[in-house]
Order: sequence, then C-alpha cells, then structure tokens
Amino acid sequence: MHVMNESGRVEAFSDGVFAIAITLLILEIKVPEIGEHGGLWHALGAQWPSYAAYVVSFLVIGIMWINHHQVFSYVARIDRTLMFLNLLVLMVVAAVPWPTAMLAEYLREDKASHVAAAVYSMVMVAMALAFQALWWHLTRTGHLFDARVDVEGARRTRVRFALGSLAYPATVGLAYVSAPLTLAAHGLIAIYYGFNQVPVPTRTPDRAALPEDGR
Amino acid sequence: MHVMNESGRVEAFSDGVFAIAITLLILEIKVPEIGEHGGLWHALGAQWPSYAAYVVSFLVIGIMWINHHQVFSYVARIDRTLMFLNLLVLMVVAAVPWPTAMLAEYLREDKASHVAAAVYSMVMVAMALAFQALWWHLTRTGHLFDARVDVEGARRTRVRFALGSLAYPATVGLAYVSAPLTLAAHGLIAIYYGFNQVPVPTRTPDRAALPEDGR
Amino acid sequence: MHVMNESGRVEAFSDGVFAIAITLLILEIKVPEIGEHGGLWHALGAQWPSYAAYVVSFLVIGIMWINHHQVFSYVARIDRTLMFLNLLVLMVVAAVPWPTAMLAEYLREDKASHVAAAVYSMVMVAMALAFQALWWHLTRTGHLFDARVDVEGARRTRVRFALGSLAYPATVGLAYVSAPLTLAAHGLIAIYYGFNQVPVPTRTPDRAALPEDGR
Amino acid sequence: MHVMNESGRVEAFSDGVFAIAITLLILEIKVPEIGEHGGLWHALGAQWPSYAAYVVSFLVIGIMWINHHQVFSYVARIDRTLMFLNLLVLMVVAAVPWPTAMLAEYLREDKASHVAAAVYSMVMVAMALAFQALWWHLTRTGHLFDARVDVEGARRTRVRFALGSLAYPATVGLAYVSAPLTLAAHGLIAIYYGFNQVPVPTRTPDRAALPEDGR
Repeated sequence: MHVMNESGRVEAFSDGVFAIAITLLILEIKVPEIGEHGGLWHALGAQWPSYAAYVVSFLVIGIMWINHHQVFSYVARIDRTLMFLNLLVLMVVAAVPWPTAMLAEYLREDKASHVAAAVYSMVMVAMALAFQALWWHLTRTGHLFDARVDVEGARRTRVRFALGSLAYPATVGLAYVSAPLTLAAHGLIAIYYGFNQVPVPTRTPDRAALPEDGR
Repeated sequence: MHVMNESGRVEAFSDGVFAIAITLLILEIKVPEIGEHGGLWHALGAQWPSYAAYVVSFLVIGIMWINHHQVFSYVARIDRTLMFLNLLVLMVVAAVPWPTAMLAEYLREDKASHVAAAVYSMVMVAMALAFQALWWHLTRTGHLFDARVDVEGARRTRVRFALGSLAYPATVGLAYVSAPLTLAAHGLIAIYYGFNQVPVPTRTPDRAALPEDGR
Repeated sequence: MHVMNESGRVEAFSDGVFAIAITLLILEIKVPEIGEHGGLWHALGAQWPSYAAYVVSFLVIGIMWINHHQVFSYVARIDRTLMFLNLLVLMVVAAVPWPTAMLAEYLREDKASHVAAAVYSMVMVAMALAFQALWWHLTRTGHLFDARVDVEGARRTRVRFALGSLAYPATVGLAYVSAPLTLAAHGLIAIYYGFNQVPVPTRTPDRAALPEDGR
Repeated sequence: MHVMNESGRVEAFSDGVFAIAITLLILEIKVPEIGEHGGLWHALGAQWPSYAAYVVSFLVIGIMWINHHQVFSYVARIDRTLMFLNLLVLMVVAAVPWPTAMLAEYLREDKASHVAAAVYSMVMVAMALAFQALWWHLTRTGHLFDARVDVEGARRTRVRFALGSLAYPATVGLAYVSAPLTLAAHGLIAIYYGFNQVPVPTRTPDRAALPEDGR
C-alpha cells in the first residue's frame, strides 16, 4: 500500500473544509421580512430557531475540528484508507449546514420539527461513525502514528470512545420527544467533547495529551 | 489543563474563517432589477446602502483580522479556554454578513433602519466582548504568551483596552439617532483600530510592538 | 521563460479552491418544502437525487484533489504554462457545483435527465483533459519535476494515463441510456482513481510512489 | 511606524480571499429552467453569457492572484499602509462576483448591457488603481522589499506599469460600443498580464524575475 508521508497537506485541506463549512452556516439565517403586525424586532424574535441552530452547529463543527486536529497532530503518515475515511468525515462535516437550515426552518412546526431534529441527529450519528472508523483504522496497527504515541494504550481507548458515541443515537430518539431539547442536547454534547478531547496516550509522560487529560 | 503548543494551526483555521466571512459579504449585494421608470444606472444608484455596508463590514472584519493576527503572533501555547474563546470570536466574525445584509436592506426604511442599525451595533459589541475575554484570559497569567511579552505590561493594557471598547455600546444608542450615521461610525472605529492595534508590550525594546506603537 | 521556484504557494491556492468547491456542493441540497400530501419524511425522500449527486461530486472533487496533490508533491518549479494549465484545472473543478445541482434537479425528469447527465459528463471530460494537459506539460521536458522523478518513466505513463481518461467520454454516451447510471459510473470512476492514483515513477526505489503503486 | 515582519501571514490571508472569490463565481451560473418551447439544451444555450462571464472573471482573478503572489514574494516586511492597501485590493477582488453576475444577467439586453459592462470595467479600473497604489507604496522607499530587489529599478517600472493600466479605463468607453466585446477585452487583458507579470527587478542576475522576464 502506498504511503504518503505528509499529513500536513491533508490536515490543511481538512482545515479548509472545516473553516468553510462553519462559515457557510450563517447563510442559513435570513434577513427577516417585516410582517403586517409587529416591526423588525418582532420579525427578528420570530427567527430565534435560526440563531439557536447557528450557535449549536458552530460549536459542533468547531469542536469536531479541535478533535480532528488533535488526532492528526499525532499522525505521521497517511495511507489511502485514511485518506478515504478522512474524506468521509469531511463529507459529513460539509453537509452540516443543510440539516441546520432544515431544523431552524421547522423547529416550531409540531410534526415536522421531530423529523427535522431526527435528521439533524442522524447526521451527527454519521459524523461520529465516520470519526470512529478513522480512529479504529489509526489504532489498528498504529503504524501511521508518530513515535510519541503509545499504540497499545490508544487501542484500549476504542471501547470508551465508542461508548461515548452512543450519545448520538440517543438523540435520534430524543428528537421524537422535543426538537428544541434535541438541539440543546447537541450543544451540550459538543461542549462536553470540547473539554473531553480524544485522549491520545503517549509513551512517555511529556507535554502532550495524557489519558488523564481526557477528562 | 491540557496545553497544545501549536498556535499556528489555530491561527490558520481562524484566518480561514476570517477570509471566508469577508468574501461572503459580496453575496449581500444583489444584481439590481430594472424598475419601470429609470434604467440600470437608476437601479444601481438605489442600492447604495449595500455598497456602504459592504465597505464598512469589509473594513471591520479585515481590521479585526489584523488585530487577531497581531495578538496571536505573541501566543506560543493554546489551552482549551483560549480555544473556546477563539471559537466565540470566530462565531461572531462569521455572523457579520447577516447584520450587514439586514442593515443594507432596511437602511432607507425609517423605523426598521434604527432596529437594523442597533442589531448591527450589537453584533459589534459581541465581537468586542469576545475579543476582550480572549485578551483578559491571555493576560491573566500570561503563561500562553511567548518569551518576548512583558506580561505585567500586557495586564496593564486591559483597562485602556476595555475603555476603548466602550465606543461599541455607544453605537447602539446612535442607531436610534441615525442608521447611516451608525454605519459611518463603525467604519471610522474600524479605521481607528487599524492604526491603533492591540499594543502587546514586550520586555526588551525590539522591532516588535512597543506600547507607544499602540497610539 | 520565467520560472518561479515555489510550488508550495500554487499548491496552497489550489487546495483552497478544491476545499471551497467541495464545501459549496452542500448549497445544492435545499431545505425541502412540505407538500400537500405526505409530511417532511416524504419530502426528504423525494430529494434523493440531491443526496446522490452530493456524494458523487464530493468523491470526484476529493479524489481529484488527492491526485492533484500527488502530482504537485513532485513538482519543484512552476513556469507560466503550468500556472495557466493549473488555472484551467481549477476553473473546471470550481465549476462542478453547477452541473451537480443541475443533475440533481433533473435526474427524475425523463428527457432533461439525459441532457443534464451529458453536461455533467462533459464537465468531467473537461476536467480530465485539463489534467492530462498539465501532465503532458510536466512530462514533456521534466525540468519542473524535482530530482526524485524518473522523467523517462513519467513520459511513458502518458499513454496509459490518456487511455484511462477515455472512460469519461464514454459516460457522455451513457448519459443517453440512463442518468442515474451515469451518476453511479462517475462515483465508481472516482473510487477507481482513488485507489489508482497518478503513478509518478521515481529514479530510485524509495518510500515515494513507485510505478507498481499505481495499480 | 510599526513594522510587522511576517509577510507570509498576509499573503496566506490574501490567498484565501482570492481562492474564495474565484470559487464563488460559479454561484452566478444558475440551473436553467426549461421554457415552454425548447428543452434543456435550448435553455443551456441561452445561458452563454454566464459561461463567458465565468471564464473571463476566473482568468481575471486567477491572474491577479499570480501577480499579487509575484509581488509579495519579494516583500519581507509589512507596514500598516501596506496592510490597508492590500485590504483595498482584496475588497475589489472579493467584489468581482457581483459585476460578473450582473454582466451575465444583462449581456443580451440592449441598453442595460452597456451599463453592466461599464460597471464591470469600472470594477477592473478600481482593481488596477488599488494594485498601483500598493506598488507605488512598495517602490517609494523600497524598505519593505527583501534584499534581492533593485529598488531603483523597481521605481523606474512605475510609469510603464501605470501606462499599462490605462487599458482599463479604455474598456469603460468600450462598454458603450459593445458589452460582449468589453468582456472579451477583459479576457485578453487578463491573458496579457498572465504572460507579462509585474517585473520586479533584482540586483543580481539570479533565478528570480529579471526585467526582461517581464515581457
């Protein structure tokens, strides 16, 4: 299998996709039209689902970027499977503006709100699965990591990592309880992962991420 | 607390968001439709609020980028709080195309113009607050700065920096006087900050920013 | 002829265009409107051509990026002709969101689907031709390659490379058989090229791409 | 005056804006709607002004990028005036998708086509003026250049450079003769500047751009 030894370029391309996807989110918030009764303030207030969806999806993509960046900072070599799995992660990340706009549009409509929230949650499930696949591939042999990484330790994180991802399927169920609650849950999960990044165990205790850093 | 020692990647990601947000501003200027009386020149002239809003928001984001870049050029280490505060700054920066489009849309409508200008100003207040929070976090212990920075001196800039930011809340009030005046004020504040960048005091007088450079 | 010796900047600019084009694809997927009969799930299901077109075009641009990156990793010098040919490649890559949106729009309409698929295929032909031209220019004298490259060997890849590209014109014909089949074919060709990257033969057997890596 | 000594970051930010502006051009080409008589081919044919405008503006921005990149590769230091003038250049570059969309929209309408072409040309005049201002600032004292540059020689290029820019105002006049001809002229001027980049004279004859390279 062909091995490229420049993870930098892959990371730079990925960063570009993350940065663009996160910035395109704003296109979902429209300039409100003034209705017959109530002025611009009223019209602005009626748009609150758009603001909430913007903030949550911004956190989701932003923190996904932090974790992606964290993992790739330990990757020294790229093989084709990693390239593909990374494209898969990016394909889901780049898609986030779409369920965001849909959830904002339908958040206040009874029946459709549950469907929109379920689709939003399913996109998050897809993102978690793609990232899991990338992590399993990296930790399987560990030969793509740089020398700092404790491969055995990294492999042991898989189960904990997979268990953590079970939160996402749960939000698909939550969508049928309440769409606003589902959105809030995704915001909380994002913040949780912001403070509990993927722990990459290293061989020697140095300044890099140690397992206990992960909580 | 986990400390990443690559501020470069965070800065590159941030630069991406700044560059995309500033370039998306143009989507706000529509191709004018020719009305019943008056040709394309007339229709183009009627769109002047869009051009004014484009120029001012371009300056605002561009000069915010200069200052962001200036501060981060002295940052050697990134912790999670800085990561979050930076995401917060970017969340506001990426949102700028929206109040820009709204202000352009309503600038010539009496009542709505004040609301649109107030919202525009409030987004600027949010941007200033997020950037202040980032600066306070950096100067609190100073351990994220590189060795050049005079941490004591940097901490002393906080008050002056905070006072300078009072201009933004004032523009919220100004919005109720005149929306075009508010837009002009934001253009002037941006230019002022272009020539009065965040002064990062350094220990030894070298080619880097000295306190007196800040005015 | 003037020779610039920084291929890095050209590659970074190109990466930016690839990353933006791939992320703009999502704008093609609209928030579905709920029809009179059937709810949001129904409306979402009716949009399947958009999802299929998104996935295929994402793979096409993503794998084109991998190959572009692979070739440029062996380029040490840039001349003006290469600059122009690269602009030509980027002009087609940046255009991909347009035929993607058109194919998604018309995939289920009998007559128009063939036209949309043919145009989609023609854009792919243009992309293959532009990339071929770039490869022929590089291998003609080989003086832009870095020292690792076996120029004679690289020149010999031209015919095989050109033959491989014949798949694209064939999809223009396929468009008149079936538009969904054409879309599927482009997905398969992309995956094929993901595992059969441009083989850049090197002088000495090192960790870089060897001819046998190319299959 | 405060001098930052990292032209790399400014160039990277600028490259981002160029890459985004050039990729946003595609949003101007709409998915055609099928009219009552004639199918999709017919509707596609009727859109030719969009394709022509896309190609020309892509060349304009692409070659402007080449020249911007060429000049900045000799810049070692950035001062605030350069920062501002560069923001001005970017403000015009980022605006190009707008006159492009307008010219495409009105190219076939008699009276409006002249206005749209004149505005397109005026944006090009603005771009040339901003770039001239940047070049004059750089060559005035030359202290921002790196050591390779022959400052005296660079200063002498000003007049020739300014004369070359007179082509742009001429296209404003041409707009009132024919809009398609104006678009074609801009394509030709772009290609001309692709092969006649800004000549940056160097002190010693090395591999870098020599004056005779400029033609």
